[in-house]
Amino acid sequence: MKIWLSGAIMEAEAARIDPADRGFLLGDGLFETMLARNGHISFFEEHLMRLVSGADMIGIEMPFGPVHVEEACKALLEENKLDSAPRASLRLTLTRGPGPRGLALPANASPTVMISCAAAPNPPERLNAIIATPRRNPWSPAARLKALPYLDNVLAKEEARMKGADEALMLETSGNLACASAANIFLWEGERLITPSERCGILPGITRAALLELAPDMGIETSEDEIAPARIAHASGAFLTNCLMGLVPLARIDGRVIPAHPMTARLAAAYELLLDAADEND
Amino acid sequence: MKIWLSGAIMEAEAARIDPADRGFLLGDGLFETMLARNGHISFFEEHLMRLVSGADMIGIEMPFGPVHVEEACKALLEENKLDSAPRASLRLTLTRGPGPRGLALPANASPTVMISCAAAPNPPERLNAIIATPRRNPWSPAARLKALPYLDNVLAKEEARMKGADEALMLETSGNLACASAANIFLWEGERLITPSERCGILPGITRAALLELAPDMGIETSEDEIAPARIAHASGAFLTNCLMGLVPLARIDGRVIPAHPMTARLAAAYELLLDAADEND
Repeated sequence: MKIWLSGAIMEAEAARIDPADRGFLLGDGLFETMLARNGHISFFEEHLMRLVSGADMIGIEMPFGPVHVEEACKALLEENKLDSAPRASLRLTLTRGPGPRGLALPANASPTVMISCAAAPNPPERLNAIIATPRRNPWSPAARLKALPYLDNVLAKEEARMKGADEALMLETSGNLACASAANIFLWEGERLITPSERCGILPGITRAALLELAPDMGIETSEDEIAPARIAHASGAFLTNCLMGLVPLARIDGRVIPAHPMTARLAAAYELLLDAADEND
Repeated sequence: MKIWLSGAIMEAEAARIDPADRGFLLGDGLFETMLARNGHISFFEEHLMRLVSGADMIGIEMPFGPVHVEEACKALLEENKLDSAPRASLRLTLTRGPGPRGLALPANASPTVMISCAAAPNPPERLNAIIATPRRNPWSPAARLKALPYLDNVLAKEEARMKGADEALMLETSGNLACASAANIFLWEGERLITPSERCGILPGITRAALLELAPDMGIETSEDEIAPARIAHASGAFLTNCLMGLVPLARIDGRVIPAHPMTARLAAAYELLLDAADEND
């Protein structure tokens, strides 16, 4: 497998991350995970914009422009023979680069940019989730960004596996529903679609944003809210979203059966059409 | 500068971290920062024990035993001509090692272990601190471990610098005092010493633990508590602790002058004697 590292494509085995890279030492960086379908990258502009605005917020300068990065992604897919794969994932990582000991920002940072890709399996048809122990932090700037620190999410996901489930839901520190380990969550309350608001320590996903725009066009009322977990018991359906999976229904949460809501499939189909239309304009 | 990487000492410029290392991609790992004085590592056993028990908690197997690691640290200090330096820092990093895409734990993890060292400056005589925006998460397993995710702390520290201060204090999500960006905090209330409890999203520091043991022997009453920030205004003194600095008084918090408490220097001197005695037995 080849990766793209700070301007050049090379074998992953030959690529070297500096042991002083602050991404490695301190989680000091950001990333994006993107879906590529037959070489078309879905929501590329949105991903790059989120990365660059996050980088701006934490004071990292992205050394490559959008056109350069998109070309690099496409070239990398080609080199790895994934440009005609129906589904591939791309990961774009940006770190503050190497620095001396300690937390203080280095005077002349030289950020690291890396792109890797992989074949992406088909999304699961449905998922069983548990509510995991680690909680999201609404007071954490890192929590609102797609930042490297994912250890709590890794532990949440592992807790799900140990309990025989597929996925972990996370509350935020006040006890409201936040998100899954690497996805946003939506609940149906009758014909109304609700999702935890951005105040709830979530990463505001790109698929989440697309659905919040798409649903009203289909006559579906949406709301971003603080959602007490007790509302799960009364939900008439639930699904997770991220860029790789799209929409995937939740079949159970903590063992409780979640009804299959008929509108989930309609929304998923409309979302697919959105991706298809964007690919055609690519 | 040389580093020790998974068993061998090499020039840092020649050392390679795998771009698929989960420490780099997800903050999936732990570290320890240790003080070495003339080649003697203070609290080496405590550091290693904390690393190994943390690793156990998150399911990473430390591939090297304590004797091996201590020898590696000392050999590395020697190679970098820091074995007779009055003060040097050592950083021991352990990650889950490389893995495929996604959060799920790799089936056959091959953890990465790295040791680096640097000359350590003398600790500052006093520090001015602000209370920063990012808050600690008492519901985060990673927050209670010396885990790689330090981005919030990096941002807190940078916020302090921007505001003309030296150090950032962090509250926890409920608003109680937690810690500094890379140190624990103690307040004097009269002759009584208080510090945020382990429930407050702190990393329980090794210097903190040593002081909680040492102070009662000197007739100082201590308590671990939930500390509302309003109590700072009435504190008769305050200091920060970590292994590299020892005890450093806080001169101001958010601009407010903090009295210099006469017992801080006595406690610091007793702590120094503790380190000296341990070095002699090394």
